Amino acid sequence: MKSVSLLGSTGSIGTQTLDVIRKNNDIKVVALAAGTRVKELAEQAREFKPQLVSVGTQEKAKELKVLLSDMDVKIVYGMEGLIEAATIDEADIVVTAVVGMMGIEPTIAAINAHKDIALANKETLVTAGHIIINLAKEKNVSIYPVDSEHSAIFQCLNGENRGQIDKILLTASGGPFRGKTRKELENVTLADALKHPNWAMGRKITIDSSTMVNKGLEVIEAQWLFGVPVDKVQVIVQPQSIIHSMVQFVDGGVMAQLGSPDMRLPIQYALYYPERRILDTKRLDFYELAQITFEKPDMETFKGLKFAYNAAERGGNIPTAMNAANELAVSRFLDEKIKYLDIYDIIEYAMENIKYIDNPTVEQILETEKTVYEMIESRW
Amino acid sequence: MKSVSLLGSTGSIGTQTLDVIRKNNDIKVVALAAGTRVKELAEQAREFKPQLVSVGTQEKAKELKVLLSDMDVKIVYGMEGLIEAATIDEADIVVTAVVGMMGIEPTIAAINAHKDIALANKETLVTAGHIIINLAKEKNVSIYPVDSEHSAIFQCLNGENRGQIDKILLTASGGPFRGKTRKELENVTLADALKHPNWAMGRKITIDSSTMVNKGLEVIEAQWLFGVPVDKVQVIVQPQSIIHSMVQFVDGGVMAQLGSPDMRLPIQYALYYPERRILDTKRLDFYELAQITFEKPDMETFKGLKFAYNAAERGGNIPTAMNAANELAVSRFLDEKIKYLDIYDIIEYAMENIKYIDNPTVEQILETEKTVYEMIESRW
Repeated sequence: MKSVSLLGSTGSIGTQTLDVIRKNNDIKVVALAAGTRVKELAEQAREFKPQLVSVGTQEKAKELKVLLSDMDVKIVYGMEGLIEAATIDEADIVVTAVVGMMGIEPTIAAINAHKDIALANKETLVTAGHIIINLAKEKNVSIYPVDSEHSAIFQCLNGENRGQIDKILLTASGGPFRGKTRKELENVTLADALKHPNWAMGRKITIDSSTMVNKGLEVIEAQWLFGVPVDKVQVIVQPQSIIHSMVQFVDGGVMAQLGSPDMRLPIQYALYYPERRILDTKRLDFYELAQITFEKPDMETFKGLKFAYNAAERGGNIPTAMNAANELAVSRFLDEKIKYLDIYDIIEYAMENIKYIDNPTVEQILETEKTVYEMIESRW
Repeated sequence: MKSVSLLGSTGSIGTQTLDVIRKNNDIKVVALAAGTRVKELAEQAREFKPQLVSVGTQEKAKELKVLLSDMDVKIVYGMEGLIEAATIDEADIVVTAVVGMMGIEPTIAAINAHKDIALANKETLVTAGHIIINLAKEKNVSIYPVDSEHSAIFQCLNGENRGQIDKILLTASGGPFRGKTRKELENVTLADALKHPNWAMGRKITIDSSTMVNKGLEVIEAQWLFGVPVDKVQVIVQPQSIIHSMVQFVDGGVMAQLGSPDMRLPIQYALYYPERRILDTKRLDFYELAQITFEKPDMETFKGLKFAYNAAERGGNIPTAMNAANELAVSRFLDEKIKYLDIYDIIEYAMENIKYIDNPTVEQILETEKTVYEMIESRW
């Protein structure tokens, strides 16, 4: 029986991971970690009976202790707790579904502890790909992508030789504002931006999807996950979100993975790879679907993609600056403190003004994040 | 260095196979077999220097001897010659690109001689799938499909467990008459039927493509190649011929293979599997492509598909009856002796009137072919 430690258990990916585990009923959950949703976490702990539960703060840990007072479970908190959950002896695989750059340290700790990683935390590879990928190789640890695009690419590469990749074709829905001009984006509201056409996701990633920053981060992630230069990653807008991504090989053949938008598929694929398990996702009906369309992304209006190619080419701590600036900008937009297009201005400012650091350490990555936050806070 | 025996070297697949071999320049051609095109065959022999060349008749063999009088090459003919080419000691893999039911015996002989098979001859599996597949298993021989749809399915299954197939989604262009009514088909001419929208192919297969008989035979072939019941093979009309076929797995995930219409890709894939070699096929440009559309096949107008499902379900010698009746009917249509819709009537008549034989031997299969020819000749 496989044992899993799940970091970020109360979020969208976390709860869907538990859905998959519940349905298959042959994976043991040995640790659960969440941030602030103590009640949900307590319910999960009652159902899955992990040995260890971690929560964001000491205060939340106290609340959790009360809720779980009758259970034999170790309760920890903070980054130290998260790392304890990520490195727990009994886990074979760590699902990193925490949001943001706090995913970096537990992921590194888990790899050092020889755990395979089901990676749902984008920031880890975007900011520390150069560290993570080499470390995973050194420790002979597998990294299974969990988001739908990278899982699709990973599925397309199944049985293939990575040296024969010609191009990665990363698909994008184009988000709720596809086709709009910059002028039209000036006054979009938070409610508009939160309406994703195809996927039900968390608020932050929904905004990132509308700005194409999310797709940009995925481009950077793809270069690390699949070992290809960023100019071999092409983004194709595929508004119906049916093709989850494709790989073109040196013979001109293209393999694609398609499906209904349902995150349980990539989650389950990562947990059981290379086995596919029965899953009750909605089956594609091609007769009904009638068509799949393709468009070139508008990188001048939706600058998220342009920033990402630039960040990937410059490397060093620039992807970190891009990501950190976006995190803060989106958080302000979610609080309705800034306008939609300010998100781009903030990212651009941070990328232009951060001091370049080549091959940054984890400390320097976190320092870059802090510096970017300070830079933005002093201006916006 | 891999050694290949190529049966049907002067046909469309044959010449493209030689193109692929020429370009890669690391496969030895040890035998070539063709029917009547002696001059082309002689040129091929000069270029590829096989040990053995086989041709259709004794007369043609004499012509060939004159043309190759200065070369050290064994010249044989007829079915005996074809079988000698298929079983030649030096070959690792036999490409069976002959047209029609005469592909059955050399394929069986090649498998008995422990040769892997690159199969481009549809009739072999359609009529004798129950014999071929079991024999290949027994002799531990691999069968690599060469036509674009089955190669696409084979590529989708790379790295996958066949037990996890949910459904095979076989794509079809729909042919030149897609959308037409039965009434409109009454007076189509040979020239109309020979205009395939996407693929340049031989005349017979172009007609078969227009009647959907070709797709029907592919459905029957798929059941044997991939070990799935025929009701798990669904045909989807995809008029642009970009998606060459797909496989849906038990988790709802669909893998698809896409590419420009270029037979060199599946040929090369079969010759070098699992390796992909660089090939200068036209790359897909999804921005330019703009869309891929899907339709339900019209099985009432284009009865080829309906006949095939019926033949596959009844089994025995019924697929042979279907195929033999179609061969004769198309040959008559190509000679402008019958009208287009007569093709369907002829197939239907043969399938209804042939005496059913369960689990037919090769002899009974060939006997069924003969009987069908006689039945048709006495009526049309």
